[in-house]
Amino acid sequence: MQKWLGLAILAAMMSFATAARANRDVIVHARDPANWAVQSGDYNGARYSALDQINKDNVGELKVAWTFATGVLRGHEGGPLVIGDTMYLVTPFPNVVMALDLSRDQKIIWKYQLKQDPSVIAVMCCDSVNRGVQYAEGKILVHTADTSLVALDAKTGMELWKVADDDPKKGATATGAPLIVKDKVIVGVSGGEFGVRGYITAYDLNSGYKLWRAYSMGPDEDILVDPEKTLVLGKPAGKDSSLKTWNGDQWKIGGGPVWGYMAYDPELNLIYYGTGNPSTWNPVQRAGPDGKPIDQKWAMTMFARDVDTGVARWAYQMTPFDQWDYDGVNEPILADLEFNGYARKTVSHFDRNGFAYTWDRATGELLVADKFDPDANWATSIVMDKNDPNYGRPVVAKKFAPFETGTDETTKGICPSSLGSKNQQPASFSRLTGLFYVPVTRMCMDYEPFKVSYAIGQPYVGATLTMFPAPAAEGATGALIAWDGAKGKTVWSTPERFAVWSGVLTTAGGIAFYGTLEGYLKAVDQRDGKELFKFKTPSGIVGNPMTYMHAGKQYVAVFSGVGGWAGIGLAAGLTNPDDGSGAVGGFAKLSDYTSLGGSLTVFALP
Amino acid sequence: MQKWLGLAILAAMMSFATAARANRDVIVHARDPANWAVQSGDYNGARYSALDQINKDNVGELKVAWTFATGVLRGHEGGPLVIGDTMYLVTPFPNVVMALDLSRDQKIIWKYQLKQDPSVIAVMCCDSVNRGVQYAEGKILVHTADTSLVALDAKTGMELWKVADDDPKKGATATGAPLIVKDKVIVGVSGGEFGVRGYITAYDLNSGYKLWRAYSMGPDEDILVDPEKTLVLGKPAGKDSSLKTWNGDQWKIGGGPVWGYMAYDPELNLIYYGTGNPSTWNPVQRAGPDGKPIDQKWAMTMFARDVDTGVARWAYQMTPFDQWDYDGVNEPILADLEFNGYARKTVSHFDRNGFAYTWDRATGELLVADKFDPDANWATSIVMDKNDPNYGRPVVAKKFAPFETGTDETTKGICPSSLGSKNQQPASFSRLTGLFYVPVTRMCMDYEPFKVSYAIGQPYVGATLTMFPAPAAEGATGALIAWDGAKGKTVWSTPERFAVWSGVLTTAGGIAFYGTLEGYLKAVDQRDGKELFKFKTPSGIVGNPMTYMHAGKQYVAVFSGVGGWAGIGLAAGLTNPDDGSGAVGGFAKLSDYTSLGGSLTVFALP
Repeated sequence: MQKWLGLAILAAMMSFATAARANRDVIVHARDPANWAVQSGDYNGARYSALDQINKDNVGELKVAWTFATGVLRGHEGGPLVIGDTMYLVTPFPNVVMALDLSRDQKIIWKYQLKQDPSVIAVMCCDSVNRGVQYAEGKILVHTADTSLVALDAKTGMELWKVADDDPKKGATATGAPLIVKDKVIVGVSGGEFGVRGYITAYDLNSGYKLWRAYSMGPDEDILVDPEKTLVLGKPAGKDSSLKTWNGDQWKIGGGPVWGYMAYDPELNLIYYGTGNPSTWNPVQRAGPDGKPIDQKWAMTMFARDVDTGVARWAYQMTPFDQWDYDGVNEPILADLEFNGYARKTVSHFDRNGFAYTWDRATGELLVADKFDPDANWATSIVMDKNDPNYGRPVVAKKFAPFETGTDETTKGICPSSLGSKNQQPASFSRLTGLFYVPVTRMCMDYEPFKVSYAIGQPYVGATLTMFPAPAAEGATGALIAWDGAKGKTVWSTPERFAVWSGVLTTAGGIAFYGTLEGYLKAVDQRDGKELFKFKTPSGIVGNPMTYMHAGKQYVAVFSGVGGWAGIGLAAGLTNPDDGSGAVGGFAKLSDYTSLGGSLTVFALP
Repeated sequence: MQKWLGLAILAAMMSFATAARANRDVIVHARDPANWAVQSGDYNGARYSALDQINKDNVGELKVAWTFATGVLRGHEGGPLVIGDTMYLVTPFPNVVMALDLSRDQKIIWKYQLKQDPSVIAVMCCDSVNRGVQYAEGKILVHTADTSLVALDAKTGMELWKVADDDPKKGATATGAPLIVKDKVIVGVSGGEFGVRGYITAYDLNSGYKLWRAYSMGPDEDILVDPEKTLVLGKPAGKDSSLKTWNGDQWKIGGGPVWGYMAYDPELNLIYYGTGNPSTWNPVQRAGPDGKPIDQKWAMTMFARDVDTGVARWAYQMTPFDQWDYDGVNEPILADLEFNGYARKTVSHFDRNGFAYTWDRATGELLVADKFDPDANWATSIVMDKNDPNYGRPVVAKKFAPFETGTDETTKGICPSSLGSKNQQPASFSRLTGLFYVPVTRMCMDYEPFKVSYAIGQPYVGATLTMFPAPAAEGATGALIAWDGAKGKTVWSTPERFAVWSGVLTTAGGIAFYGTLEGYLKAVDQRDGKELFKFKTPSGIVGNPMTYMHAGKQYVAVFSGVGGWAGIGLAAGLTNPDDGSGAVGGFAKLSDYTSLGGSLTVFALP
């Protein structure tokens, strides 16, 4: 007993020490704007840099400083990290991880490549992408396509530990960036098109030991929802909050994957992330026992979870009973927005469904839910009256509800398309203006559900789509918009020929950087969207621009390498990549502007 | 009779008209320095541009203007053409041909891709490269990997005609750029490692009709050598000049492929090109009936041929009885060098064997033959005494002759390696300085022949190599040198970490441009080699820099995309690309500096 107690105390102390250290390490690195220490810039997911050597007055002079081919074609989402003198990056499948020496002409310090079965590509719905490595305590963490979570020694690239998070034979894959918080590495899983039951899992940073897993749907003990304490719009979730929203056992193949960027509030000790679509895409098959719509909770949901236990603090479902593949995985961004003269701790989220949501991030109280996509027609609004029995729910337009139209019938003219008014490419919150800068897609669709049977590892989609430019967009199928999160209003919007499929970076220099599918890196004025700079990188940009300082000089870097869902026609070598039919992108004529090719383009002032 | 005569006259007139037109078209386009109308810059193969907006005083200010991923990994040899507002390029296998609109943000005007059986890659010795398209009379000509010669409409990319030049099942492939002269398209064939009997073939530019073919070895009627009129070092070649230098029927699988750049003298009506190694690489198997060395003519030979008939005007064999794989395919460069105060019509050639040759290009008289590679030890000199029975032949050092050492024995320390003191990447002749600028490799080798049997379509190599840096190079396995062609002297030499595997471009601005295997485009002063500019492109450079003028601005463009023989370890994804053993390159640690990726980087002054 004495001995056990001693060990327990020691273990607790070690755990505390490690936790404190890990937490501090990432925070300290992220606080130094010379680094780009976290994929999202910081735990807030703001993608904002305090660097201002490059600013709106001189950004027009920006030149290419150096370039680096990654050796891989197809979609280059995410971006590199910079910690001190070293840049870390990971390619799309086969997920080559590299460390470059910024002090020695970008010499490759090490390369690491996990041996993966290439057949995994066949079960990656939307190109063989990877949204980036993360760093903490001298380790680089990568979640490879086959769901292996690998910790590497950041100095040498030596494998420290490796765990298999899931099984690609079931259709489970990994594309997201891990989130490292305290002594934990948190990862999600992709596979909503294969009937994978989504979750996030926390592993011990030092050992790879599995600490907890929280599924998106199922019994309370699986989803780590406390019926008493987990809040839903201010009220306890109640028992079986998920189970009772599914017909029979369908939750077991229910989707709700997690592959977007996550955020963390160290004070509240909460992590934030969104869950994806329920499986299948055919809503008729997911109706309740009475044949009526049923929510399929907690797919399409923003979750706030305690990082130590995984238990949900609150949950909010953006799109109950999805009929459009409006995954809710898009990134949460933590900010302290002002309401009625008071700053509130908020989390904002630009959903695929075209609505921008802002919640109180401690409680999940819904503060704002307004359309950032002027085309969105599937719902007229979100009910904001707390006394309404439908409080917090969208008012669905039956005309654009495939469930109403039925299996094997086509619902026409739904906006946005399944690509979403915005997809996974992360928005940015500028501390300078207090505005969000959001990459937008303006596509609509015709949607025809069909009956599909589940078979393990096989596509479980159940819908045929035809996508086309939003009629009101007048040929511009993308835009960058500036959004007032408290007011729920678009401040300005600049059109783009194609969907803006890159993330956004804002800086203290007053600039917002983003990339286009043709391959331009652009810099615009945060105040009015005026274009200040553009440069044509080798291939279409679906990555996220980042910035860092090295040897006294500020650099802006961005992956170029068209692909992802928007470029899957090109990436997968489909014979007619411009074909709008199917869910393969449908950006007519993208192939007239760009070809595949993965590289990093790094800019600096001359 | 009357009718026949009329038709004949009409045909003759048409033929004359076409011939004149085609010839003039290329010449006119090449004369305008705003264009880069021929892969080699002009018919002389000089790779010299009269543009001087970018010059040695301002080249340090050069910036990247735009970039363009080709969509293909592996080795990007050759380079783009520019005719007016349009840029034309071809990728390595699968040989996608593209036209870009320089006036409209490099929009892709058209793409063309011939459907080829990918198994052709397995019989391409030295990466799946293509050294460029050519242009004439509104047509783009491409010689694809599977030896198809295709004429495309330059405006639309529509296929005009297509012929199968040879059969990859025999190991015959195509990697070279065609040469378009008058109404003829002239192409060679690769396959010296597969026992292909090399040749060049002339096709009619307008129809693809085969006009003549000249083999590298065999009966006089096959090799288009006139025993009376074809000159060899000033004397008639005599009957069976090739046949009598082969043991039995070995000439039928004799190699001598043609895949380097060719040149043309319109006044003399002669085309110039070199032939490659005799098959097999095991010299013991190629000995004469008496067991002694025998020349294997006309492998390893510089040919001058009449373009209308294909008949050889003269021939010179650089490396009789090859024992080192010193292919003679490197480019001929036409210049008028001064000898004893008089300009002579010369052709110069930097051979893989380390010697630089200059001939009178009308007669084939050997004017200069000196080592441009200080390491070359396989021969001490070339016999220049016209009265010596060995006139024009190398004085071979028996110590470095694998034939002397024998099958299954290793000859150590041969310099250069089979990569050559220089490989296919073309040198440049500057009209400004009258000097040649030559990309150099400084590698040596151990060479062990082994017995090999011929089987159709199978490797017919018969030697194992280990390559290593030339000891005297002190770690720099490459260099750019300036060479005085008349004096046969190196004027200056600048070392490079790796072999310079890019072509060279010189301009009236006083600059020589070249690329490095790490990926740098460099500009040096033609006078002294002083580095004036460097920029790191995405991947290692094995392509040829070119320059053009558009809308009043001079641009310099270069393919980036490591591969070719020097980068085959990386390109083919060999598990240990740095392994020097075998003939796979052996540039230790190249993978520490660069990764695969094909793109074009285009520079201009700000």
